[in-house]
Amino acid sequence: MKTEGRNAVVELLKTDKNIDKIMLEKGAQGSLSIIFAQARKKNVRVQFVDRQVLDKESESRRHQGVIAFTTDYEYFDLEEIIAEKKSEKGGFIVLCDGIEDVHNLGSILRVAECAGADGVVIPKTGSASVTEAVIRISAGAAEHMKVAKVGNLNHAVETLQNNGYWVYALEAGGEDIYAEDFSGNVALIVGGEDSGVKRLTKEKCDKVLSIPLQGNVNSLNASVALGIAAYEVVRKRLGK
Amino acid sequence: MKTEGRNAVVELLKTDKNIDKIMLEKGAQGSLSIIFAQARKKNVRVQFVDRQVLDKESESRRHQGVIAFTTDYEYFDLEEIIAEKKSEKGGFIVLCDGIEDVHNLGSILRVAECAGADGVVIPKTGSASVTEAVIRISAGAAEHMKVAKVGNLNHAVETLQNNGYWVYALEAGGEDIYAEDFSGNVALIVGGEDSGVKRLTKEKCDKVLSIPLQGNVNSLNASVALGIAAYEVVRKRLGK
Repeated sequence: MKTEGRNAVVELLKTDKNIDKIMLEKGAQGSLSIIFAQARKKNVRVQFVDRQVLDKESESRRHQGVIAFTTDYEYFDLEEIIAEKKSEKGGFIVLCDGIEDVHNLGSILRVAECAGADGVVIPKTGSASVTEAVIRISAGAAEHMKVAKVGNLNHAVETLQNNGYWVYALEAGGEDIYAEDFSGNVALIVGGEDSGVKRLTKEKCDKVLSIPLQGNVNSLNASVALGIAAYEVVRKRLGK
Repeated sequence: MKTEGRNAVVELLKTDKNIDKIMLEKGAQGSLSIIFAQARKKNVRVQFVDRQVLDKESESRRHQGVIAFTTDYEYFDLEEIIAEKKSEKGGFIVLCDGIEDVHNLGSILRVAECAGADGVVIPKTGSASVTEAVIRISAGAAEHMKVAKVGNLNHAVETLQNNGYWVYALEAGGEDIYAEDFSGNVALIVGGEDSGVKRLTKEKCDKVLSIPLQGNVNSLNASVALGIAAYEVVRKRLGK
């Protein structure tokens, strides 16, 4: 969806809506540079283009030098994901801690969907959002997967624990993932490429689980690690 | 590594060497357009740039309008990978059938290394090569992993079988991966995003194995699928 014109984009930037990118006319000044500053603050990608590009993209023909591209993706509440319970064996929820890369988030949605998870939880800050790129990379999974955006991931962990979930962080130096029986409600937290699962979040978890690395490289890609762990849950639940 | 000048690049294009990209001066004519045609034929990326860019990149100061960038990555022979046998439980080799995306190949190298595979086999045509981008995406795994480039993947499957390997294709509609014991020498074939493992290759394999999908999306990303399958081999070998 496109939002055109200075005031409209200024208002859009005040909301929680999912802005993919903002196109600004090259040499932007005045209220356009305020939009630029706001967009930067919110980590929204800004593209500087010639007026002709804006003219071509514009549907209203009144873009005033700015068009914002938003995704229609609608987030769910954590409670809706908890209520989902696709498997009779128990709930299965994935939490992302600092997944900033759209490729990783798209891949995580895809693997979560393939493993039959009820939903994916992402934090409002320090995380990629469900943009058009993420939806495309997820290979359609984003349409079948409930995603909740929460203000505080540690609160989400508490909410899950209060709802009878065992919350596991996937990280090096933890316990043997193959020894876990994953009966009941399971939540897996996967961390970002650089920082992993944050210390406070790890402390809140019921257990840290590790995938045994057999080589010299000291970590797996986030979506691959989630794939291996999520399928360990699947395998146990299928009784294989 | 940079190769500069018309003749040098023409010669380079006749070899099997790994060319990341070729920079050509804008408005290339004559022997430069022959280089362009040859590069296209070999699927080498060509970038048209201003003379100043070439001047800046040039180390010899005699670029004649063309600089080729090659990767120093040295491939191994399939026999060297077969001889590697890192695990006392048996050989473990990954074959890629039509992985064209550098992200996927980089991720595959990373997961293969983490799972303790002896090496990765890629075909000469229809596959991404081990470029700088692949090495970067592999998070260093490319330096610890032997990669063989083979003319014909089906011949490689035969060679592996003659060396006592069980060769498995990862594809939908196959047998239960969890029922396989993976004792002895194991080779896993992972297919490209669009085409999967090719029919002829699948027919050559000893078995087609599938990961049970629990959702609506009908396939996992190649490197994630490999991660799940390779760790099923790891799990069985660890006796978990």
